[in-house]
Amino acid sequence: MPFEIKASEKAKRTVNPIRAIVDKVLAGPPSTCPLKRIPLSLGDPTHFGNLLPPSLLTSSLQDCASSHKFDGYVPAFGCPNLRKSVAESFSSENVKYTDDDVVVASGCSGALELLLTGLLNPGQNILVPKPGFPLYEVIAVSHGCTVKYYNLNPSDNWNVDLNSLESAFDSNTVGVLINNPSNPCGSVFSKSHLKQIIEVCEKHNTMVIGDEVYGGMVFEGSEYNSLAEVSAEMGGTVPVVSCSGMAKQYLVPGMRVGWLTFYGPGLEELKGGVKSLSQVVLGACHLAQEASSRALDDGCEEFKKELNLKLQTQAGALESGLKGCHGLTVIKPEGAMYTMVKINVEEFKDIANDIEFTKMLLDEKNVFALPGTCFGIENFFRAVYCAPVEMLEEAGVRIKEFCEDHKM
Amino acid sequence: MPFEIKASEKAKRTVNPIRAIVDKVLAGPPSTCPLKRIPLSLGDPTHFGNLLPPSLLTSSLQDCASSHKFDGYVPAFGCPNLRKSVAESFSSENVKYTDDDVVVASGCSGALELLLTGLLNPGQNILVPKPGFPLYEVIAVSHGCTVKYYNLNPSDNWNVDLNSLESAFDSNTVGVLINNPSNPCGSVFSKSHLKQIIEVCEKHNTMVIGDEVYGGMVFEGSEYNSLAEVSAEMGGTVPVVSCSGMAKQYLVPGMRVGWLTFYGPGLEELKGGVKSLSQVVLGACHLAQEASSRALDDGCEEFKKELNLKLQTQAGALESGLKGCHGLTVIKPEGAMYTMVKINVEEFKDIANDIEFTKMLLDEKNVFALPGTCFGIENFFRAVYCAPVEMLEEAGVRIKEFCEDHKM
Repeated sequence: MPFEIKASEKAKRTVNPIRAIVDKVLAGPPSTCPLKRIPLSLGDPTHFGNLLPPSLLTSSLQDCASSHKFDGYVPAFGCPNLRKSVAESFSSENVKYTDDDVVVASGCSGALELLLTGLLNPGQNILVPKPGFPLYEVIAVSHGCTVKYYNLNPSDNWNVDLNSLESAFDSNTVGVLINNPSNPCGSVFSKSHLKQIIEVCEKHNTMVIGDEVYGGMVFEGSEYNSLAEVSAEMGGTVPVVSCSGMAKQYLVPGMRVGWLTFYGPGLEELKGGVKSLSQVVLGACHLAQEASSRALDDGCEEFKKELNLKLQTQAGALESGLKGCHGLTVIKPEGAMYTMVKINVEEFKDIANDIEFTKMLLDEKNVFALPGTCFGIENFFRAVYCAPVEMLEEAGVRIKEFCEDHKM
Repeated sequence: MPFEIKASEKAKRTVNPIRAIVDKVLAGPPSTCPLKRIPLSLGDPTHFGNLLPPSLLTSSLQDCASSHKFDGYVPAFGCPNLRKSVAESFSSENVKYTDDDVVVASGCSGALELLLTGLLNPGQNILVPKPGFPLYEVIAVSHGCTVKYYNLNPSDNWNVDLNSLESAFDSNTVGVLINNPSNPCGSVFSKSHLKQIIEVCEKHNTMVIGDEVYGGMVFEGSEYNSLAEVSAEMGGTVPVVSCSGMAKQYLVPGMRVGWLTFYGPGLEELKGGVKSLSQVVLGACHLAQEASSRALDDGCEEFKKELNLKLQTQAGALESGLKGCHGLTVIKPEGAMYTMVKINVEEFKDIANDIEFTKMLLDEKNVFALPGTCFGIENFFRAVYCAPVEMLEEAGVRIKEFCEDHKM
């Protein structure tokens, strides 16, 4: 009998929906546009070479390699130095983390996967933002669970539509995922808005799951407040488990160093479960963990200030280019690396939706942006502003021409 | 209502049995023995500083960090260079891997976890060796599955008891895990024995899961043959998916770079499932992957030869010390970093089993070895010979005294 090995049901359930959507954008013959490709699609800040990690991090990696002190196994929950550094650098007057409240994982995605594996039983659900990062759904569905969406309102700077949040809860809801600053929106929630969201969670006795990988990456005029800090100011009764990591704030997504922080009451069993799970795979690269610890201890404040300024300048360059475009509505980005641009399809003569818009833009102008459908919302596109200013300006020029060519 | 967040059933099922056993060994007041601790328990070859990775690997890590070419995301299945290096260095005249047959993961444990997640549905089982590495069972049980044991026979150099293998199959068996060279036994299967094992798998139409993380780590007089190679020589009809990595052969367990290789027919669906799963967490550290690729391309043949010689010398030092001990039976190790020593409890006046033996040895002589119970077999202890020769000789002296003190 010939062999025919089956994949598990879990593997079959684990499907990244972006792939199928992007395939639609890329379908057909390749672009014959003579212009050089401008990828506004890539969430990798290191792609263009204009954004480099802090030199302390690089030199620490080199020192750690040559010392041979970090060749060996690292404890499953993470290297003690890194857990201490995370605990210290994320603590505040109101929020006191100990090393025991930190679990290291293989990147922020790995941390989120670890947390949801520790939390979810089949049939349960978590509430996630729409538009939002598709990984939340991928992980939930892989566990035989579902996500339910609450809306972010583009007319209100992508704040949470609290009514839609309220109505999303059901008896199987075990967590509310809050992503701040937002991928794909580039929005930043104010402290008062975070309080409103957490109040709803408290009312429904549901824990907060924070995706705060862009924490601190905010522009002038906006302020980042961590979910744990806000919960603490409200009395600390709502538990918050957040994932974060080195990827974006230190510009090293390839390093795969992320972590979970546990704040608030009633989390002991979950934390224990997550720690049990972390023992199977043994986490992130040891020397990358130690180098991360050194960068966190230093704080790299100058670096972070400069990075935010650069991103703000780049965001501004893209924004000004897009503002003058026929048929587009730009929502000013406040942080992270993204902006979601509204496509007013009724103002175009031959573009029916965001997938057509992004496909035609790629074909005709060789500018690649992801359709909003990838993030659960139609007739937007997401643009990443990690590219150098000149490239973003050029993108603006090309998109403007494109919109003119197709206007009603 | 106060929060009380529950852990998932999967997290509750994920329990490493070694911990509870080791706790028994460590129970009670700490040793008052004035001698310095000799840990023969640690499977981390880097612990003592006598075994260093190849300098090419270290310098590659440094170069990769400073080049900034590897700061960014790496493809989910692994860095293309590393997949190519693995495919090339594991290919032979009979076994041709392409890049597509390689999936990179976070260490060999991560690779095994990925494979079993892609393969197992609740209620199924895999066959695993006894004694064997406890992680196999931890992962299987975490998926709502079980392991069934086949015996390794200490009287036959830890070869597989083929009758026990035959009788372990049932209708829910989906794979036979073969670990060669063996942790904890330090044994190496001959080619003809591997053929016997694979014949049984073929008869039962069951795929082979290889744990070959110690592949090539064999001593004079033994020869390492990969499972894929042996399957190929038998006609290539039995599919083999093997996990391996940099941890042991290159002495960098902390780097967390491992991989799966897919050989043979009927594996397309499984491979696709594993690749879908790998997209969730995005694998191992990018610069560690690239540095691994360079080390594999070089081959580091001199380094590997020296490492095997060192390990053989250290194994010999431990073996000679233990051979003269009352009440112990030593089985000559042939590879890897381990030996399993039989405790003839009937020859001791006051030692009932392996847990008492290791506990008393720790209390009285400050030599720490893991009881065989950790690996599923009673009245053995596992000793690791990664320590320097003098320390292993000293361990032999102390164990000899201990055995004399307690002899019947």
